[in-house]
Amino acid sequence: MTATVAAAPVSSFAAALSERYGDDDLATDGVWNETLATLLGHRSVRSYLPDPLPKGWLETIVAAAQSAPTSSNSQAWSVVAVEEPEQKSRLASLAGEQAHVRAAPLLLVFVADLSRAARLATAQNSPLEGADYLEAFLIAALDAALAAQNAVVAAESLGLGTCYLGALRNHPEAVAREIGLPPRAAAVFGLTVGFPDATAPAAIKPRLPQEAVLHRGRYGLGAEQRAVSRHDRASVAFRASQGLDSTPWSALAVDRLRSVAALKGRHTLGASLRALGFPIV
Amino acid sequence: MTATVAAAPVSSFAAALSERYGDDDLATDGVWNETLATLLGHRSVRSYLPDPLPKGWLETIVAAAQSAPTSSNSQAWSVVAVEEPEQKSRLASLAGEQAHVRAAPLLLVFVADLSRAARLATAQNSPLEGADYLEAFLIAALDAALAAQNAVVAAESLGLGTCYLGALRNHPEAVAREIGLPPRAAAVFGLTVGFPDATAPAAIKPRLPQEAVLHRGRYGLGAEQRAVSRHDRASVAFRASQGLDSTPWSALAVDRLRSVAALKGRHTLGASLRALGFPIV
Repeated sequence: MTATVAAAPVSSFAAALSERYGDDDLATDGVWNETLATLLGHRSVRSYLPDPLPKGWLETIVAAAQSAPTSSNSQAWSVVAVEEPEQKSRLASLAGEQAHVRAAPLLLVFVADLSRAARLATAQNSPLEGADYLEAFLIAALDAALAAQNAVVAAESLGLGTCYLGALRNHPEAVAREIGLPPRAAAVFGLTVGFPDATAPAAIKPRLPQEAVLHRGRYGLGAEQRAVSRHDRASVAFRASQGLDSTPWSALAVDRLRSVAALKGRHTLGASLRALGFPIV
Repeated sequence: MTATVAAAPVSSFAAALSERYGDDDLATDGVWNETLATLLGHRSVRSYLPDPLPKGWLETIVAAAQSAPTSSNSQAWSVVAVEEPEQKSRLASLAGEQAHVRAAPLLLVFVADLSRAARLATAQNSPLEGADYLEAFLIAALDAALAAQNAVVAAESLGLGTCYLGALRNHPEAVAREIGLPPRAAAVFGLTVGFPDATAPAAIKPRLPQEAVLHRGRYGLGAEQRAVSRHDRASVAFRASQGLDSTPWSALAVDRLRSVAALKGRHTLGASLRALGFPIV
């Protein structure tokens, strides 16, 4: 049995652009449909209702994830679905105690997975020398990211909310033990999924003006300073609307990478990946 | 002015699943809408009409890309749009001479970009020590991937075709020179975009049965062998329909990583990234 469920669409392209960039003064030549409304209407959701996903929805979301492109059809990723509250709670503890992990009915752990190729190589009595290089880890991590983003779009098209969890990289070896990963597999991020709690609605966070991100033919810096100033104003206004302090985006973006400590333990990611079977030569 | 344009939807969830997995014998409990039809209907397009994108479509696609989640709102990516035929041809030569790069009216080069944060840090007289670590490169590469996959979904919802181009990592330093990248920026992949040539239609490539990819609570191997066998049968049938030889998927997946030579020069990616300003400590 297949039901049809669609998210409430944003009203128009102009309205969606204005929210996305936190700026009412934008050119609005564009094109519009239900899928674009879902994409432009994205916001990260951290407050969830406890209700589980209806029957068949996880499988539909995973089919969408598997439909994403994958490098040379390698399919070098896997996903571990965690619903059991105590296991989810242990993973929350390993990932910076973010409250949305315990609140969401479902945590998807996306795995960069060269272990399947390794098992096939063993069965075929073949070497797998290419798997030792940074390129191979990157193929697997990018495959996982493309699949995960399709999962996000699929979930949001159904009216679900999602939030990525990069903090699953804080303790890669402990996460691997918790979900029983074989060698040559590592969790690259998590994704919480559930129905948004309408009493704590999430807002659309503004992004840099397009001139700072989109370049024509060659990377150019001519528009950057003005674009960053506009974005600082938009993001300070957004933070005020959320009850946050008035630190501009340009300061927050530097803070994130200012020091080794700012990486919150993830400066040892290379060593952790080596321990998990990715030599990253 | 905003027009509404939607891709022709796949008829039903059951039909889409059957094409996606190359298997008619699947449970079809699920849910369905226009966005899911776009996601499950993905196929990589390598034959394009020469027509450029209509006015405003690139900007709409980039707005969708910018709407993707980004780690801590870092927005650590950029995109360089290449339309000029000679420049596109030079990039095709750097990326394994794949014909679709010259055929497509538009090549989007997705860039892992910590250079913006580096310029902001310089302006703020701040260090940026965190940028030297593998974690920081991974943040930027994943940000680029999430954005790019939103671009793919947006483009396909408009009836455009796309194809990723990982071969842009064959010669990262030459690509960086061609598109004028500053230090701490590197192209992670390209994406060709254009209207599909209906006289050479692309087919949906089957994926592994879900049991091989989706795990519950812990990673398990119980379903893998049967799933790989089923996928080998489905992929051999698919390859026959495309006039390709009958090598099973399990052999192709190992071939891709069998030797250093199989990486097609990308075993030096780490050294190239260091030369481009990513120390990857």
